[in-house]
Amino acid sequence: MNQPPSDRTRIRRVASNAHYDTATLHAIVDDAYLCHIAFSDGKGAHCIPTACWREGEHLYIHGSNGSRMVKHLLQNECCVTITHLDGLVLARSAFNHSMNFRSAMIYGRFEAVEGGAARHALEAFMEKLAPGRQAEIRPGSDKEYAATTVLRIPLAEAACKIRAGGVEDDAEDLNWPVWTGVLPLARTPLAPLPEPDCKLPAPAYVLQWDSCSSAT
Amino acid sequence: MNQPPSDRTRIRRVASNAHYDTATLHAIVDDAYLCHIAFSDGKGAHCIPTACWREGEHLYIHGSNGSRMVKHLLQNECCVTITHLDGLVLARSAFNHSMNFRSAMIYGRFEAVEGGAARHALEAFMEKLAPGRQAEIRPGSDKEYAATTVLRIPLAEAACKIRAGGVEDDAEDLNWPVWTGVLPLARTPLAPLPEPDCKLPAPAYVLQWDSCSSAT
Repeated sequence: MNQPPSDRTRIRRVASNAHYDTATLHAIVDDAYLCHIAFSDGKGAHCIPTACWREGEHLYIHGSNGSRMVKHLLQNECCVTITHLDGLVLARSAFNHSMNFRSAMIYGRFEAVEGGAARHALEAFMEKLAPGRQAEIRPGSDKEYAATTVLRIPLAEAACKIRAGGVEDDAEDLNWPVWTGVLPLARTPLAPLPEPDCKLPAPAYVLQWDSCSSAT
Repeated sequence: MNQPPSDRTRIRRVASNAHYDTATLHAIVDDAYLCHIAFSDGKGAHCIPTACWREGEHLYIHGSNGSRMVKHLLQNECCVTITHLDGLVLARSAFNHSMNFRSAMIYGRFEAVEGGAARHALEAFMEKLAPGRQAEIRPGSDKEYAATTVLRIPLAEAACKIRAGGVEDDAEDLNWPVWTGVLPLARTPLAPLPEPDCKLPAPAYVLQWDSCSSAT
């Protein structure tokens, strides 16, 4: 499984950090709330951040029907990238400094998701953001659904790159007298902020939101 | 100052969230350790994550001389995007859900930074990552510097977009009986991880690394 699915997904720089298996790809995508999408038009290359989620072997996004990005992505190939920054790697020598990260790049073309499948996909997105919330909120109207395009891209042509763990210094630098190690970074949930006029009790997904970060 | 510097930087979707002033742009760039760069070549559009930093009115990156991205960026226009995700906005109606974020898009072309200016820029990068560390580490050799290209792009053609604050529901949904508010997210420094064989005391920038997050 550790072979790239295409020439343009073959990682050449630090190829030992490349991963082409499905489990790694799914884990990186599932840990993301947003991706960056690169595409080109007559005005040049664009790099647009947008919310994303996964169902099965596709990455999903959504947008207004009239948006430039939606129109363009349905007609052209693009590259979708997700990057999680996990830490700064402070080596003993300047040029062995690095960052720990997990990234995924997906090449291909988005297709529109229509009708009931689009509703299902948006509900799956809500389920990822706040499990159970879809049943509590004012549901989308036919007009709202009609004004929104759901798009998906296959996860077939993808490559992941992961740098994890500690410092990698050259043998001759190992005795250089400087502190060395990793300064970790994490995306952390902070305490929920209810709207001032919200008097309702918080549901489970709100109560549990920052329980992990409070425990550390 | 709230006018876009070019047609392609004019934000059309939720234009009230657009910012074109220098202070906003600098703040978003300075809070980032990495950016995503979109460019196109014969194999399509690519979206590459890479470390970045700012000096004055330029965003800097670095890479190996031989890298595809370095070669391409010196010859073609690109788009550099930085996005910070600040929270999930849980509205009362499905289609008013949103995310809080701060993003910056920079269009233009990178130029190579040569000689002493390149060394100075890499030292400024280290100063951002770990203030004072440059004087402690094994400095780069001439060979290491020669194998690395430093590039910079002007911050002149840029646009920022910020979504902050609370929920924005329509008047007719305000009494819908569901918890509503923001689930905040932050990039948080976690406790430093010294290399197992590192017996040296931690310098100030390591001791202070996770002091903010421990206090919350």
